[in-house]
Amino acid sequence: MSNDTDDLDNLIALMAKLPGLGPRSARRAVLHMIKKRGLVLLPLAEAMHRVGTTARECLNCGNIGTKDICDICESPKRATGEICVVEDVADLWAMERSQVFKGRYHVLGGTLSALDAIGPDELRIPKLLDRIKVEDISEVILALGATIDGQTTAHYIADQLPGVKVTSLAQGVPVGGELDYLDDGTITAALNARKAL
Amino acid sequence: MSNDTDDLDNLIALMAKLPGLGPRSARRAVLHMIKKRGLVLLPLAEAMHRVGTTARECLNCGNIGTKDICDICESPKRATGEICVVEDVADLWAMERSQVFKGRYHVLGGTLSALDAIGPDELRIPKLLDRIKVEDISEVILALGATIDGQTTAHYIADQLPGVKVTSLAQGVPVGGELDYLDDGTITAALNARKAL
Ligand SMILES: [Zn+2]
Ligand SMILES: [Zn+2]
Repeated sequence: MSNDTDDLDNLIALMAKLPGLGPRSARRAVLHMIKKRGLVLLPLAEAMHRVGTTARECLNCGNIGTKDICDICESPKRATGEICVVEDVADLWAMERSQVFKGRYHVLGGTLSALDAIGPDELRIPKLLDRIKVEDISEVILALGATIDGQTTAHYIADQLPGVKVTSLAQGVPVGGELDYLDDGTITAALNARKAL
Repeated sequence: MSNDTDDLDNLIALMAKLPGLGPRSARRAVLHMIKKRGLVLLPLAEAMHRVGTTARECLNCGNIGTKDICDICESPKRATGEICVVEDVADLWAMERSQVFKGRYHVLGGTLSALDAIGPDELRIPKLLDRIKVEDISEVILALGATIDGQTTAHYIADQLPGVKVTSLAQGVPVGGELDYLDDGTITAALNARKAL
């Protein structure tokens, strides 16, 4: 490519770093954007700028919204006494799409991992323990992946909460599976069949 | 998702429309961007805005650059007398990456298609015929896909250029390709174009 394409090369390189995209799909995506400059490229630039300036993590649960406290944490309807603990915001979105859970969330921001030296303080675990003291919580539902790190994290959290009802999603979540890959029906079935740890 | 996520939903919806992305990969990509706001999201917004305001099609060949005439058309080194005709800018980039072609290009912007009612005037074919009159062209290389529409387009262009040397890329087994993965048409073409060793 020639030197009047520096901006283009830069855009392709940035796109190619997104998860799920590689150089080839980034080039295709960028050509598509340029062909649809008014319908795709400029609206995307504007949407990214907007999200980049407004998006923030909820100080209570770690969900992404535009305010210090997200809509789910603010809504009295969601004060069911249940907190669903997830690894990631993508998992929270997957739960919300299944529409079966009516309570609030807590986004850990990952799982405990000896290998990656991720301990409780690297995650939103201290804040979870605070919430359980302050909010009127009847049940903590651990909706963590059926991976070794996910289950280690689940047991660690359960150990920190003596006297609190702690449940986890039923097996039905495939071994090694991540929540975000599951269809709504599987999530619904796994939630309905949840068991006490 | 809740109503303080309108900007986020909008960004995900726009990303999901890009070729190669769907709703799930768009959500993953957007979460990744937000986590890497300074390294990914804001630079992407800026790069898109820049490309959106500077990118334009070369008036001569249809390549994408930032000037009315692209670097390849402007470079005297590329005046080899050869024009390589491609369907799309992505194909031009693929040729440039192979570094084997030293001449100039002509980007048709698609192929003739009876089904989609795309005739010569919907493509950059009239401009190609003009260039062959004006530029000092010794050979037109048709690097079009081995599809029915691609080959129809190749034959149409060859018919418009009596007295001009018109060639096309050889069809055959891709380098590193295993026969077992190829469709019958490719194997047939490769067999018909077989050469003595
Ligand atoms: Zn929240
Ligand atoms: Zn050009």
